[in-house]
Amino acid sequence: MEISKRKLIDGKNRRFPKKICFTPIGIIHSPFKELKGIPIQFKMSNTEGFIEIFPEYERGLYELGGFSHLICLYSFDLVKLPVPLQSKPFLSNEKKGVFATRTPFRPNPIGLSIFAINNIELNTINVKNIDVIDRTPVLDIKPYVHDFDSLDESNVGWLKGNIRRKCS
Amino acid sequence: MEISKRKLIDGKNRRFPKKICFTPIGIIHSPFKELKGIPIQFKMSNTEGFIEIFPEYERGLYELGGFSHLICLYSFDLVKLPVPLQSKPFLSNEKKGVFATRTPFRPNPIGLSIFAINNIELNTINVKNIDVIDRTPVLDIKPYVHDFDSLDESNVGWLKGNIRRKCS
Repeated sequence: MEISKRKLIDGKNRRFPKKICFTPIGIIHSPFKELKGIPIQFKMSNTEGFIEIFPEYERGLYELGGFSHLICLYSFDLVKLPVPLQSKPFLSNEKKGVFATRTPFRPNPIGLSIFAINNIELNTINVKNIDVIDRTPVLDIKPYVHDFDSLDESNVGWLKGNIRRKCS
Repeated sequence: MEISKRKLIDGKNRRFPKKICFTPIGIIHSPFKELKGIPIQFKMSNTEGFIEIFPEYERGLYELGGFSHLICLYSFDLVKLPVPLQSKPFLSNEKKGVFATRTPFRPNPIGLSIFAINNIELNTINVKNIDVIDRTPVLDIKPYVHDFDSLDESNVGWLKGNIRRKCS
């Protein structure tokens, strides 16, 4: 049955949640079958793969194909909790807070990658810039919108000077 | 106790999850107490507010203050599931697939906003560009990294020509 109305929970019944649960909407199929060799960021990957959206969500892909890029939110499902709140990230020899890094080892291990869309066939999104392990569970797909998501100027804190040094 | 090792689940024990649950790490405090009047996108908001990170995660903020912007992932906790897979978004009079829009009414209602960081005091991140309702549960904070997150060129599909028309 088509759900045609978008409904809200009555504000009076709002309670701050102790736990928030999601159901995966698909799977990222990646040529990386093990952690070794996975690019540390999507921007440093030319690898192709595809996102299988489960058939029950296929209608939600309508008109995504007109966009060149998507934001994929997914679960780092191999991360064991709890994680350290400070540790040495890949690009530094000094400890940083987990929220000042892009490490997968996060209190809520949600990954964010921007993939280029090659094409979409039924429930399959063929993408480029894969930086995740095969069979990663997908939580959400959003269109990448330059006017919203690209900033002209921003400071990158401790990463300044470290990105190119380690990745080129 | 400090958890010093980052641990992985053994690949052999990996099972595709039916449900993935997270624990909020904080709360967005916003001057918007009701849905009416909330800017539809962070880029269209100059409103200030603050993110309260729960004290047990405060150490994870170390060195975030050097960045000018953060990516905040949060829960649209007022959205009632299930949602329609296609509907007319704010910026169009024609139906679009949910994954081709930025609507909060998503199968997994996870929100993504990029906030400018004003300053950080203990477990409080003072931010700008607030586009969410007060007391929104925070799932993750990541530093915005221009080299990763800004794309020089991207196509915005059905949104082309609609963003400025409706929002300026």
